[in-house]
Amino acid sequence: MSFKTIEWLPEGVLRLLDQRVIPAEKTYQDYSDAPAVAAAIHDMVVRGAPAIGVTAAFGLALTAYHSQAASVESLRAELDAAEAILRRSRPTAVNLFWALDRMLRRIHDHEYASPAELRAAVIDEAQQIAAEDVATCQQIGLHGMALIPDQATIIHHCNTGSLAASDYGTALGVIRTAHEHGKEVFVLVDETRPRLQGARLTSWELKEQGIPHKIIADGASGHYMRTQKISLCVVGADRIAANGDTANKIGTYNLAVVAQANGVPFYVAAPTTTIDMATPNGDAIEIEERTPLEVLQIGSERIAPEGVDAGNPAFDVTPAQYISGIITEKGVIYPPYEANLKQLFGLG
Amino acid sequence: MSFKTIEWLPEGVLRLLDQRVIPAEKTYQDYSDAPAVAAAIHDMVVRGAPAIGVTAAFGLALTAYHSQAASVESLRAELDAAEAILRRSRPTAVNLFWALDRMLRRIHDHEYASPAELRAAVIDEAQQIAAEDVATCQQIGLHGMALIPDQATIIHHCNTGSLAASDYGTALGVIRTAHEHGKEVFVLVDETRPRLQGARLTSWELKEQGIPHKIIADGASGHYMRTQKISLCVVGADRIAANGDTANKIGTYNLAVVAQANGVPFYVAAPTTTIDMATPNGDAIEIEERTPLEVLQIGSERIAPEGVDAGNPAFDVTPAQYISGIITEKGVIYPPYEANLKQLFGLG
Repeated sequence: MSFKTIEWLPEGVLRLLDQRVIPAEKTYQDYSDAPAVAAAIHDMVVRGAPAIGVTAAFGLALTAYHSQAASVESLRAELDAAEAILRRSRPTAVNLFWALDRMLRRIHDHEYASPAELRAAVIDEAQQIAAEDVATCQQIGLHGMALIPDQATIIHHCNTGSLAASDYGTALGVIRTAHEHGKEVFVLVDETRPRLQGARLTSWELKEQGIPHKIIADGASGHYMRTQKISLCVVGADRIAANGDTANKIGTYNLAVVAQANGVPFYVAAPTTTIDMATPNGDAIEIEERTPLEVLQIGSERIAPEGVDAGNPAFDVTPAQYISGIITEKGVIYPPYEANLKQLFGLG
Repeated sequence: MSFKTIEWLPEGVLRLLDQRVIPAEKTYQDYSDAPAVAAAIHDMVVRGAPAIGVTAAFGLALTAYHSQAASVESLRAELDAAEAILRRSRPTAVNLFWALDRMLRRIHDHEYASPAELRAAVIDEAQQIAAEDVATCQQIGLHGMALIPDQATIIHHCNTGSLAASDYGTALGVIRTAHEHGKEVFVLVDETRPRLQGARLTSWELKEQGIPHKIIADGASGHYMRTQKISLCVVGADRIAANGDTANKIGTYNLAVVAQANGVPFYVAAPTTTIDMATPNGDAIEIEERTPLEVLQIGSERIAPEGVDAGNPAFDVTPAQYISGIITEKGVIYPPYEANLKQLFGLG
């Protein structure tokens, strides 16, 4: 691919591809401190659960890199303050919290002889998280590929590719892996209102990869399932609860319900870091409400009359009963999810 | 309301409110011949099944008004030619064909002593169709109102108000009638991609009528049903088959399936002229495919990458099993639809 979603530059700069302006422009933004990175996550310069986790980790790496702290303790205090800011950037995707928790453990659970040693450890941990994300996505792609028949028509929601996670991505990685292994696939790309990640980002990635596809309005998915052979739906996830309930981009739940009504298998593809065993079920997941302007205007163009309000939940919860399987880097998890997820985490 | 959707001017002009530019502008377009009216229907200057029927009837009235025909037979030939053009303007909404068939009967099934007499009859018939549409919509509103509890939260798709039908409209007429009779209602307005009739037109009408509402992305309807008390959904129809299967704006089927999964009643509101007993079921309804540009750009702004295609079915079919009742000017029709619709039309 001719872009890098997230890049750590050796001079202590985090470079993010600005996903707000794709496909019209390919612009990079450079960051050198954690509050600016938190704002970039909130404003969706970068989005996608795994990508948010990696970005937040690098946010702490920036704090470490540029710190003038004279002691390990004062650097730890700076990192804790930065961590608190990053943690508030978005509420739903659990990868953010997972990555920050892992960074905190590296920061607090070890002895460091000097600030320089702690600084190097923080940067190393962020780079490890990024590297593991690449390997994880490749494994998700390989496990998921087996579920895709040849000559498949697949419905995909939001964006779950290289822009949302490292390299292959999650759900789009499954499709891309199948394509690269010679399976014929055709993708119906949900445009994904309100922010149009499907129309703007997914179609851009699929076009670069030469994967045949067309964009559809989110409300059209059922029409295609009723009137054509649709092989499966595959989506990503922002948080998977211990019982398999899955928070993902708004519109996922409608797609899953309609898929089940039409006998179309519905898969979630996500790294195990998206599974939060501390969240018992979907009702316990905080759903981010974003500004009504995302619904009321497109670009700078106002659609709706002045003075009219909009509801804008960024995510919804798909109950486990609608999910045919969860494709992870460790294999495909099937129902019953409560038992099988416990087993996956060795909690059985 | 401070606008007229369709107005016949005595000097042989049909004036249409240009629905393509609402709410940004309130502009009227004047028409004096049937081919221009057919183009206006195709381009969606006017839309909504009942409004299309009335507009097509006035298209023939324009032909009659401006004709220089010297004989009844030559005027009939002109009207037949105009009718053929109007008939091809859009394929799905049956009110178009119903109105044209009714006009043809008035044209061909009577003796006329002069072209002037036929001319007057054609104009009279179009005006009758328009007047009946007003009375019909008022009756739909009154019958439907009984189904709306006080303090109702209602999900509505597309636009079915004064812009889509005369005066009260169909599904929005039900909501408006309930509001005017003192019931507290709140409307979640599906924005209705790709043409955004909900965000642009329905919110504009509801705002003018002082009915509380907010706009939501089409994919968010299920999230609201899962997390709040939603009283019912009510939508319009473009064609209802003899078994109750209903073609309506794309996205209706997804909404209906999700409503049933959440135990939310799902009503269709339409005049009996939308019911086509010659169409046995939904599979026999032609679904209009419109230009991909409606999905790929918003206004003049391109969303998707260049070279990417889109699917754009303008309607979908909701099978009768998802419909709680059909609200008509003659009362609410309940399942089993096949038997009850036969009875309604005296075919039992």
